[in-house]
Amino acid sequence: MSDYEHILVGVDLTEESKLVAARAVALANAFEARLSCAHVIEPLSLAYGGDIPMDLTTIQEQIQETAKVHLQEFSAQMGIAEENQHLIFGRPETEIDAIAADIGADLIVVGSHGRHGLALILGSTANGVLHGAPCDVLAVRVGLKELS
Amino acid sequence: MSDYEHILVGVDLTEESKLVAARAVALANAFEARLSCAHVIEPLSLAYGGDIPMDLTTIQEQIQETAKVHLQEFSAQMGIAEENQHLIFGRPETEIDAIAADIGADLIVVGSHGRHGLALILGSTANGVLHGAPCDVLAVRVGLKELS
Repeated sequence: MSDYEHILVGVDLTEESKLVAARAVALANAFEARLSCAHVIEPLSLAYGGDIPMDLTTIQEQIQETAKVHLQEFSAQMGIAEENQHLIFGRPETEIDAIAADIGADLIVVGSHGRHGLALILGSTANGVLHGAPCDVLAVRVGLKELS
Repeated sequence: MSDYEHILVGVDLTEESKLVAARAVALANAFEARLSCAHVIEPLSLAYGGDIPMDLTTIQEQIQETAKVHLQEFSAQMGIAEENQHLIFGRPETEIDAIAADIGADLIVVGSHGRHGLALILGSTANGVLHGAPCDVLAVRVGLKELS
């Protein structure tokens, strides 16, 4: 069997995510596959090196609440039921691969910005997902204008 | 529109390529898309640093002839017509992206071995394709046994 049965789309809840999600929805429809989505919140302590001299708990909680609402709105647009929505903390590339393994997804769909700037040197989220993925990975090209 | 219309599958003509091709065929069927395939022969001078003290022309011609026959056999199994088969010389990642742009593909399908060995350090073909691609890239996981 070469049809996909359970597709996981990773979204960062930006406008570009809609393009990525649209591809995932098209694939899920084409293969009559189950569709799940995941949004990963990178903890501020990770993003800033764990060295911020203030209590971040309140800010972190606000970020989580906002993200939760946005993910629900986003998922509603894609027709994804609440049990198929995943909101988690951590490094996006690691967590998306972990969820994929957890839910038994056979395809991960993520956005990719292509070759530009720091992403080329540090490796993009799409690259990270690709390296550790337990299944196929579709990188949806977004922000092509930046490629020049 | 989020449906794919022209899919390009990159094949290295190994047994694993059949898995990659099967995915590409499934996608082409699901989206009623055109399917093209490409096999890239890495010139011996590139693979060995351009410093081999003998005439490689004969060997290179033999490799090309063999690859041509194998690509035709492979394509026949996938139902790909001759005008949609591409056999070229160069760096696989660069050439696959170039062909995709040339034929106006909106999805590239390639195999990916995941995280192991030198591929992790040097970057795999899938990674290279991902960086320079003019369109979406599907990395089909092959050789999972090696991941352990």
